[in-house]
Amino acid sequence: MKAPWHLREFRSLASGKELDAILISRPSNIFYATGFKGGSRLLVPADGEPVILVGGVDLVAAQEHFSGTPVKVEHIKLGEKLDDLMLKLLKETGIKKLGFDELPLKTYSRLVKELGRGNLTDLNGPIWDLRKSKDKLERELVRKACQMAVKGMEIASELMEPSRTELEIVGEIEEALRKAGSEEHPFNIIVASGPNSALPHARASGRELKKGELVIVDLGATCGGYVSDITRTFVVGKPEGWQEEIYHIVREAQEKAIMALRAGLKASEVDKVARSVIEEAGYGPYFIHGLGHGLGIEVHEPPRLAPGFEEALGVNYTVTVEPGIYLPGKGGVRVEDTVLVLEDGREVLTEFPYGLELP
Amino acid sequence: MKAPWHLREFRSLASGKELDAILISRPSNIFYATGFKGGSRLLVPADGEPVILVGGVDLVAAQEHFSGTPVKVEHIKLGEKLDDLMLKLLKETGIKKLGFDELPLKTYSRLVKELGRGNLTDLNGPIWDLRKSKDKLERELVRKACQMAVKGMEIASELMEPSRTELEIVGEIEEALRKAGSEEHPFNIIVASGPNSALPHARASGRELKKGELVIVDLGATCGGYVSDITRTFVVGKPEGWQEEIYHIVREAQEKAIMALRAGLKASEVDKVARSVIEEAGYGPYFIHGLGHGLGIEVHEPPRLAPGFEEALGVNYTVTVEPGIYLPGKGGVRVEDTVLVLEDGREVLTEFPYGLELP
Repeated sequence: MKAPWHLREFRSLASGKELDAILISRPSNIFYATGFKGGSRLLVPADGEPVILVGGVDLVAAQEHFSGTPVKVEHIKLGEKLDDLMLKLLKETGIKKLGFDELPLKTYSRLVKELGRGNLTDLNGPIWDLRKSKDKLERELVRKACQMAVKGMEIASELMEPSRTELEIVGEIEEALRKAGSEEHPFNIIVASGPNSALPHARASGRELKKGELVIVDLGATCGGYVSDITRTFVVGKPEGWQEEIYHIVREAQEKAIMALRAGLKASEVDKVARSVIEEAGYGPYFIHGLGHGLGIEVHEPPRLAPGFEEALGVNYTVTVEPGIYLPGKGGVRVEDTVLVLEDGREVLTEFPYGLELP
Repeated sequence: MKAPWHLREFRSLASGKELDAILISRPSNIFYATGFKGGSRLLVPADGEPVILVGGVDLVAAQEHFSGTPVKVEHIKLGEKLDDLMLKLLKETGIKKLGFDELPLKTYSRLVKELGRGNLTDLNGPIWDLRKSKDKLERELVRKACQMAVKGMEIASELMEPSRTELEIVGEIEEALRKAGSEEHPFNIIVASGPNSALPHARASGRELKKGELVIVDLGATCGGYVSDITRTFVVGKPEGWQEEIYHIVREAQEKAIMALRAGLKASEVDKVARSVIEEAGYGPYFIHGLGHGLGIEVHEPPRLAPGFEEALGVNYTVTVEPGIYLPGKGGVRVEDTVLVLEDGREVLTEFPYGLELP
């Protein structure tokens, strides 16, 4: 699937900031600008020919991808240093005022020496601002990645049986995601059973599921370079009272936060909607992380939906909503969906049933 | 499996450089120092209590991991900024002369303001120097990760049949790796068929394998946080003459480079052994990447085995040896093993048969 190109946005950003060019290093920014996965640096002048620097492993793929486009492919030859090639390119093109997304300290120091500190502008924030709101094609890709993830969750829900191990279940989910067409797992899939479910970032292990335990399953998929993220919590067999109790609180918190979502609302306010539900039920100290995060090319992108983040959400942001309650040593519940923020509301993109025993 | 701890090495490094402490940010360095996956920053004083800063998602896991150890776990509370907490900690402990591994520019600038540029020492190189030579437990973990990877390759070799898709095969490999106990896929597995095999970093797709095509399979596994990396090239059915020709050249290049490996040899010289074989056979321009790389906690670690890297290899380095020939539009061959460098030779850790039609 053809990925979106946003070179124009970078050119406008350069012009708007009165810069000669923008130097892009973060792989996801290079992909956002060009639709190409690979390449070490991309130079986008306000006017003139963009240049991508690629090593041998990406050369032929880059030549194919950029054939018939305005982007020039420059080969970082074996034994050649990336920074040397980059400085040569800046000299040849006469670039003085340069914006950048992020740079290793050593590269930054060389640029300071070459161009002067005053000619360097950190554009990390403005570039993230470009990426937060997803255009039509990007929304389509996230939507498809969500549909793939749902297929993974369907398989997972059928595997909640005693004596299967967490890692075995991860393997089955991965196979299902690949069959659904997922290009890459955006993160290491979590299957956390029993006491492990009380650790939000648990790592799947050889532990066998036991009857009556909670199991958190957190997975995602990738379509055309864009990702999805979904979590459900299941029970092996029939739930006990305390499990149902925390499940319903978490789900109510999630539902209320999702219903509150709309463009213009502050990120911290969405968090507060969910957090209030959990606090009022007396479990505040056990909801130990933020409510969610943006996602797109990366699985964790700005904005964070968490206390202290006062930025307003915008139209066509894609974010996760994932409250949880974690009782150390006992077990935990998290429910997460990927959601598209609209002018007057929201759309849940990861449509999968709720409930400890479902489907 | 219990991961190795290297706090002592960091303390010695701090003392040796006459620093008050080392601030570690790179996740793999935090893991190398503590055996803990997670946490945002780790402060290791030359004398005194190390402190790890962790967010809510890692808090309980960190408290368990560091219980009964000299490391203090400090919680980054919701709404609290990591850099603020870090600066507060530096003030409280009276740290002035600080080493670091890598830092975002903004964090570095704040530290310059607070401590003065002259009090900051970039230790990225010396820390990589610590990590290059693997101790006994690390070697054991890499060895086990190699055995897991071999199980993945066994499955792959049985799936080289027409009409299977690249992504389906990736899914089956992933399931096998998880069954073998792999904690995480160290990189997105490559299954590249037909013309895709001519792209060294091809991404698996919905493309179906066809009779007579070359298929490159490049995979790895993770055990106790340490990784492996192996590549084999298969043919679907019987090989044609040109396929056998480039296969034998690549394999000869690999074998000669592996036989040449020993501590004391320069990284560039190992590359040259393999590259000469391929050049003499007339395929020099089609071996477009370096011969290999170090690996350990990360799949790409120093040293690079490539032209221009004049550093000598040391005892107990774990490196890959992976020459390739890529004929654009036609197909490619790569053969890769993970190899342990010894005083007087080497040991291949990824034991799996060679040959286009094997096993």
